Amino acid sequence: EFQLLIDELHPYDIANVYKNLPEKHRHKFVTFLTTRQIASLIQELESDLQMEILNKLGIERSSHIMNLMENDDLADLLGNLEVNEIQDFLSSMKADESKTVQSLMQYDSDTAGGIMTNRFVWIPQVYTVRDAVEKLKTFAGFAENIYYLYVIDDDRKLVGVVSYRDLLLAEMDEKIEEIMYSRVISVPAETDQEEVARTIERYDFIAVPVTDENDRLIGIVTVDDVLDVLIEEANEDIEKLSATGKSIDFQTSALVASYRRLPWLILLLFIGILSGSIISTFEGTIERAVALTYFMPMIAGMTGNTGTQSLAVVVRGLVSHDIDRPTIMKLILREFGVGFIIGITCGILISIVAYLWKGNLILGLVVGSSLFFTLIIGTLAGTLIPLLLYRFKIDPAVASGPLITTLNDIFSLLVYFGTATMFLSHLL
Amino acid sequence: EFQLLIDELHPYDIANVYKNLPEKHRHKFVTFLTTRQIASLIQELESDLQMEILNKLGIERSSHIMNLMENDDLADLLGNLEVNEIQDFLSSMKADESKTVQSLMQYDSDTAGGIMTNRFVWIPQVYTVRDAVEKLKTFAGFAENIYYLYVIDDDRKLVGVVSYRDLLLAEMDEKIEEIMYSRVISVPAETDQEEVARTIERYDFIAVPVTDENDRLIGIVTVDDVLDVLIEEANEDIEKLSATGKSIDFQTSALVASYRRLPWLILLLFIGILSGSIISTFEGTIERAVALTYFMPMIAGMTGNTGTQSLAVVVRGLVSHDIDRPTIMKLILREFGVGFIIGITCGILISIVAYLWKGNLILGLVVGSSLFFTLIIGTLAGTLIPLLLYRFKIDPAVASGPLITTLNDIFSLLVYFGTATMFLSHLL
Ligand SMILES: [Mg+2]
Ligand SMILES: [Mg+2]
Ligand SMILES: [Mg+2]
Ligand SMILES: [Mg+2]
Ligand SMILES: [Mg+2]
Ligand SMILES: [Mg+2]
Ligand SMILES: [Mg+2]
Ligand SMILES: [Mg+2]
Ligand SMILES: [Mg+2]
Ligand SMILES: [Mg+2]
Ligand SMILES: [Mg+2]
Ligand SMILES: [Mg+2]
Ligand SMILES: [Mg+2]
Repeated sequence: EFQLLIDELHPYDIANVYKNLPEKHRHKFVTFLTTRQIASLIQELESDLQMEILNKLGIERSSHIMNLMENDDLADLLGNLEVNEIQDFLSSMKADESKTVQSLMQYDSDTAGGIMTNRFVWIPQVYTVRDAVEKLKTFAGFAENIYYLYVIDDDRKLVGVVSYRDLLLAEMDEKIEEIMYSRVISVPAETDQEEVARTIERYDFIAVPVTDENDRLIGIVTVDDVLDVLIEEANEDIEKLSATGKSIDFQTSALVASYRRLPWLILLLFIGILSGSIISTFEGTIERAVALTYFMPMIAGMTGNTGTQSLAVVVRGLVSHDIDRPTIMKLILREFGVGFIIGITCGILISIVAYLWKGNLILGLVVGSSLFFTLIIGTLAGTLIPLLLYRFKIDPAVASGPLITTLNDIFSLLVYFGTATMFLSHLL
Repeated sequence: EFQLLIDELHPYDIANVYKNLPEKHRHKFVTFLTTRQIASLIQELESDLQMEILNKLGIERSSHIMNLMENDDLADLLGNLEVNEIQDFLSSMKADESKTVQSLMQYDSDTAGGIMTNRFVWIPQVYTVRDAVEKLKTFAGFAENIYYLYVIDDDRKLVGVVSYRDLLLAEMDEKIEEIMYSRVISVPAETDQEEVARTIERYDFIAVPVTDENDRLIGIVTVDDVLDVLIEEANEDIEKLSATGKSIDFQTSALVASYRRLPWLILLLFIGILSGSIISTFEGTIERAVALTYFMPMIAGMTGNTGTQSLAVVVRGLVSHDIDRPTIMKLILREFGVGFIIGITCGILISIVAYLWKGNLILGLVVGSSLFFTLIIGTLAGTLIPLLLYRFKIDPAVASGPLITTLNDIFSLLVYFGTATMFLSHLL
């Protein structure tokens, strides 16, 4: 009756049960499962929990399980192991499964090749609907969650696609060539996973075929994996924008979370000391006009914030746009315009406030004009830095918020105290 | 031959052509399209461009188009109009389409009801496979992108699901009851769209059925719309974390983008003036120990950054976790631990640096202990504020990064100058 209960559960739910068991009961639980159930459980787990199970089960049982896993998930699992471990597992697996997985492992994990599966069904274009249905019946277990058949020509080139629905609606004697959809959109294996996600999202596909350099069909990327890509990429962008450090989850321990967050904070600490030494060079100015320090956090903070705003706009924009030179030039000009408009607005506002507060017109003008310039600088830094990184094929999200904030801190202190020092005689 | 070219294009591509045409040619382009093509073009456009087309075509043509639109997209479109305009359109549409759309419009746009479509095919459980295929053939055009048939009982309650693949593989005389999958997972209509997305993502579904308060099947949410939900929610989180203001795209003009970003910046300007007035109350302390100002931006910046890090962890964690009291208590304790660890590390580091730089042990201790306390405060603020907002059903992402940064600015200035003033006699 335990088997019956487990049968009722989806892999996600089985994985949830597993994760919520105390560690000493986990292995016991696994021994109650069938090989197929273990395979689908493993696909739902993080790599450390995957290894926990495989290590306990030993290499022979593990390779049976691996034979049943989706080969894209298996390629990811193996990708985390040592070379000799990989060899051990591969050599005890079925020859064809082992070969397929090896061919998948050659692709970068965040490309179409890295997230594709080869559990798709292809048919020659000369088939009839009847032939296709026959082939489909043979491969039904193999290609479980798939909704299209792919049609190829004699050179294995992709020439069309037929949905299960098309087959159901067609007559048995019709030729596949006649009912297939031949304007197939496909992606090359080296396409970035974010671009693959964009393709599926734009065309509302359930899967997109992947081709090699000779336009031959080598796999498909399914929409369920694209959902995971979108979540992963969004988390990555947010982690980088907030310099949180990689993958801190609710489950992460305080020690590990601190360890991941500290590198950034220590870098920022030293950049902060650098700002300190900049301020110290203006010691004379500050001693003569202490009121200057009152506006210092405001100017640094505002400059940092406008930079972060621009950064967020650019990073998210790059997710959903094709980037060409005119688009980039337009964007830079736009952000310059934004910097100018917010600079003039906030600059005038703070001039008035500073003047009313301290009764010193020159102080108002120094604060206002500094804010004007630093807001333009901050906005442009938040735009140009991610674009430059993108240009040199570095993920622009690594130009993280705090880094730009801190760079802007330094710019803004230089501009502010520089301006103030120039007008010092009028300030007093 | 223009029709032939257009026939070759996906709706996304047609929309791209449309958007890239100069405004005066757009209407001309639309007149070349069939009613069905206009319907699928409109589904791909933003609401202002949708209205541009409908206004030009007039109410009669528009209602023909609306009859052909996916009714979830149509409900969204109508949701943006004035009450009397809605009435005009609805009354000129087909009676049944109009009724369906009205029933969809009663749901909040970010719930399962708001993103569901009723273009699904249901069958009674007493059907045979043959009956099902017959019904499917009739509704093929109606339910274009759907891959399951839903099985209901006499009370219209959802009792099972059958995929097209199941139908293809079954014998014509088999009973649907025997081949259907009866452990169907469904979502109530008022479920938040993020929760719906999570369900589809977890179980790798292509669609999830939506039920009313009596468990009756009233619609389905398809995975293509869930992709859009994930992108929308991720953008929303990033926009709010970076206080960018709503939907600034590469296309947004400088004036509009500034207008959306300014409210936040002006709020921050005034909070910045508040920090200024806090600093000014410590004027005496600063005049006597100007070196205190050197560490001010570092302390404020570090406190702000650790707060943003915690905020990002909490906001993204809330996206993928079920939240209960023990989880929250564990999280708060964890973040307190993180604050303590990074506080002690950075505090000791900066004490040493400050001592070596200025040769003043007391200065080192003041700076180090302030940083220790402010990092704990900053980390807890970044954790507690979003959790509190979540508790009161406010989207935690609105506790935006810059807001927490600025609050932390104020805390940190008070702690820093407060500590310094206490030890002032030793500082000199
Ligand atoms: Mg992979
Ligand atoms: Mg990437
Ligand atoms: Mg889409
Ligand atoms: Mg769509
Ligand atoms: Mg997969
Ligand atoms: Mg990315
Ligand atoms: Mg929709
Ligand atoms: Mg809606
Ligand atoms: Mg929401
Ligand atoms: Mg999934
Ligand atoms: Mg999966
Ligand atoms: Mg839809
Ligand atoms: Mg959200």
